[in-house]
Amino acid sequence: MMNFQGSHILSVSQFDRDAIARILDVSAQMAPYAARQKRCHVLDGAILNNLFFEPSTRTRVSFGTAFNLLGGFVRETVGEENSSLSKGESLYDTAQVISGYSDVIAMRHPKMHSVAEFAEGSSVPVINGGDGANEHPTQALLDLFTIQSEMSRFDKGLDNLDIVLMGDLKHGRTVHSLSKLLSLYKNVKVTMVSPNALQMPDSVLSTLDNAGHQVVVTDKIAGSLACDVIYQTRIQQERFESKEEADLYRGHFSLNKQVYQQYCKNHTVIMHPLPRDSRPEANELDTDLNELENLAIFRQAQNGVLVRMALFALTLGVENSLKDYERPVNWYTNKG
Amino acid sequence: MMNFQGSHILSVSQFDRDAIARILDVSAQMAPYAARQKRCHVLDGAILNNLFFEPSTRTRVSFGTAFNLLGGFVRETVGEENSSLSKGESLYDTAQVISGYSDVIAMRHPKMHSVAEFAEGSSVPVINGGDGANEHPTQALLDLFTIQSEMSRFDKGLDNLDIVLMGDLKHGRTVHSLSKLLSLYKNVKVTMVSPNALQMPDSVLSTLDNAGHQVVVTDKIAGSLACDVIYQTRIQQERFESKEEADLYRGHFSLNKQVYQQYCKNHTVIMHPLPRDSRPEANELDTDLNELENLAIFRQAQNGVLVRMALFALTLGVENSLKDYERPVNWYTNKG
Amino acid sequence: MMNFQGSHILSVSQFDRDAIARILDVSAQMAPYAARQKRCHVLDGAILNNLFFEPSTRTRVSFGTAFNLLGGFVRETVGEENSSLSKGESLYDTAQVISGYSDVIAMRHPKMHSVAEFAEGSSVPVINGGDGANEHPTQALLDLFTIQSEMSRFDKGLDNLDIVLMGDLKHGRTVHSLSKLLSLYKNVKVTMVSPNALQMPDSVLSTLDNAGHQVVVTDKIAGSLACDVIYQTRIQQERFESKEEADLYRGHFSLNKQVYQQYCKNHTVIMHPLPRDSRPEANELDTDLNELENLAIFRQAQNGVLVRMALFALTLGVENSLKDYERPVNWYTNKG
Repeated sequence: MMNFQGSHILSVSQFDRDAIARILDVSAQMAPYAARQKRCHVLDGAILNNLFFEPSTRTRVSFGTAFNLLGGFVRETVGEENSSLSKGESLYDTAQVISGYSDVIAMRHPKMHSVAEFAEGSSVPVINGGDGANEHPTQALLDLFTIQSEMSRFDKGLDNLDIVLMGDLKHGRTVHSLSKLLSLYKNVKVTMVSPNALQMPDSVLSTLDNAGHQVVVTDKIAGSLACDVIYQTRIQQERFESKEEADLYRGHFSLNKQVYQQYCKNHTVIMHPLPRDSRPEANELDTDLNELENLAIFRQAQNGVLVRMALFALTLGVENSLKDYERPVNWYTNKG
Repeated sequence: MMNFQGSHILSVSQFDRDAIARILDVSAQMAPYAARQKRCHVLDGAILNNLFFEPSTRTRVSFGTAFNLLGGFVRETVGEENSSLSKGESLYDTAQVISGYSDVIAMRHPKMHSVAEFAEGSSVPVINGGDGANEHPTQALLDLFTIQSEMSRFDKGLDNLDIVLMGDLKHGRTVHSLSKLLSLYKNVKVTMVSPNALQMPDSVLSTLDNAGHQVVVTDKIAGSLACDVIYQTRIQQERFESKEEADLYRGHFSLNKQVYQQYCKNHTVIMHPLPRDSRPEANELDTDLNELENLAIFRQAQNGVLVRMALFALTLGVENSLKDYERPVNWYTNKG
Repeated sequence: MMNFQGSHILSVSQFDRDAIARILDVSAQMAPYAARQKRCHVLDGAILNNLFFEPSTRTRVSFGTAFNLLGGFVRETVGEENSSLSKGESLYDTAQVISGYSDVIAMRHPKMHSVAEFAEGSSVPVINGGDGANEHPTQALLDLFTIQSEMSRFDKGLDNLDIVLMGDLKHGRTVHSLSKLLSLYKNVKVTMVSPNALQMPDSVLSTLDNAGHQVVVTDKIAGSLACDVIYQTRIQQERFESKEEADLYRGHFSLNKQVYQQYCKNHTVIMHPLPRDSRPEANELDTDLNELENLAIFRQAQNGVLVRMALFALTLGVENSLKDYERPVNWYTNKG
């Protein structure tokens, strides 16, 4: 049995297919607790330090909620201005001190590789909640979990997947990490739909090629969207050299009900890392899709709690004793 | 029996007299827990997301404390700059995501009607902690609870009340909401004491008139304060067109020991929504009244915890099982 | 038996030698909980309000962690901009309200004596987490606990101690408070090593003199460091009248491996209040000492949790019932 206890979770690259399978399996076991069919207090008395040196409401709250759902306490720090780091303290020193106040740490920081540097000074497991342009491994894991979960409704899995990655593929941290994870599976078709200026980097394309996957690169949505899953990301106007160039693309990569009906399959699932820009001029993922059953974006966000619960349970070595700490939920809920 | 479970608490207008009575009754049942005579863990394992997109230390801490007093965990967000809302995310999307991380949500936001808009996307009960100039229903409920509680010391109730609302009645959200609630009771006399420029809006006066109440509008305190309750609010100099006009009123509406002794009854209770400006130039509510037994302002603030505990218990459907989850308090306290 | 319950902890001056001994003794009893050999839920259901009107990540998290380690809930406020204090509310009013939401309060504030002023309005114990240039009693207590704990490895105690205080002794709040505490013990030798411009104030020197201690004042490290404990603090360039004067001292008071080997004893323990500036130009406490067993700086930081746990237990009167609320730790840890 794979053993994660005491490990840091820093990058998707640290996992092989078996490790990923274990994480996704434990994540699935968390669903009844998050859905409030029952609750679990296996980490009663444990302390998470949730260090968000770069603010991110959604990710921060998701980590904290995940820990509370397992019964643990959460201490929290938001923003670097409140931190000794601004007085010249090294990440090593900060880690020595804060890890002494913690059983596990989740950390987000704007600087690349800062979380790994911090982890070297920590006496407890550190989970990377995003280190600048580098990695956001829990996002990639929740994306993969979502694909597996959505595909299971159609008796499909992660092998033989037909997926479209769309939008700003050059700068999107989430689509890079997800591509790395997809390279662990068999016979995947990945269609990269983006403006030419925002194509997926060659290094990512090579990883998929080396895995024997079928990779299509295009700047057209017509004919490209008849797939299992579309993973949409935002195209930001400021990524282009001129407003004119941006205008050329404005709206070409927008997903809405009409596009879905014209180009997608009946079972095509739509994902998005959120937040989405819902302003009319955003042309990103239209709210007229909100009632579509295959719009998975909110289930995807909820899955983030399951994956983070799983990582806490695995790094703290309690993944096999969850059932010994179950209790009924005695308040009203309509989630289950 | 009235059933609040799963409901949003958005406005005082959503309640009739029976609903209010139920809330005040459950609030009173919370007193022994807040006074630490015993404690209650009925919400052990439940999660409140306390979303303060507009900061307000007192209200935020009061909501969080209320949830902890029932045994639940609190996740917290302060300030909009930390939020996805600033990236164009709709309140609907935010609610979809955060409600998936919560059993109940308390929310304060500077924009009118934003909390109701948020509630439409939420899968769990949302309690309005103040939405700009619109509503602050838990403040109005704690004000009403305080009047009932203080009057009970004199064998009086909410019917037949003689109350003075004083200060800036034009802009004061609290006195507007309280007036709406008073219109549910019988035979109330409401005296509105304010500078002419800051009079109570006609719509509020009409509501009281329609309820058959006796309403007096005046700009003089002499002869106006011989009542059961004075609800004092702040007059802000910047509300006037000129400094000269403000100077005319400066100090005319101040409450201090001398004014109290000259104009009030022996049993007149003083309330204030707090914070009060205690600087000498404020001329608001003098600290020489601090030792007066009928100064209810700090009891009023404590009552906020009781009312918020009641709303959590009611919306989560545990109001009838409190006694099954009681435990002794085993640390030192001098509250009880 | 000394009784702290219901007391405020405002200044080291409020304790005699017996009181200090009791605090250090209870602190030592907290070690197994912080080291996760077992856990303690004696304060299950209690509420700490952790009020940091001046931000300080390390101290704030340490107080919060200490309370969680005893099983209690933590409500938190960071930064004065979120507070009613900025609207003219007095510390007395704030204390009246917030203490009604709390079982105990920890408070840090930039203004001298503000915490004592606040405590006068509080109905629950208030622990000073630092009030500007005045006091930071929990830091002084953890420093003393650390000296006692480190000396015990060499069969020594607080009497007959040979200690060096080094760096900016004029402005360093920690070395002032520690000196006051040392005056309670017998036959202590205190060597004050600092630039002449940053010497220890006369009032502190007098306190040590009056206790019959041997006091040496010098601006040279050669010959001064062969002691039991060196307590290093930062010298800040902006403290000098000119850059030239600062340059004269730059590096003269730096501790590194070479200085340690040349001037210290085998058993000399190094302490520092942290954060230390780890940038190369800081010349403060070099990272080449990180592997030295006698570098106590990180143990010192951990001891802050023990001392704060002890103060919570003592002021809440549960220090004698800790063992009745012990439970096993059922997650992975490598701390114990």
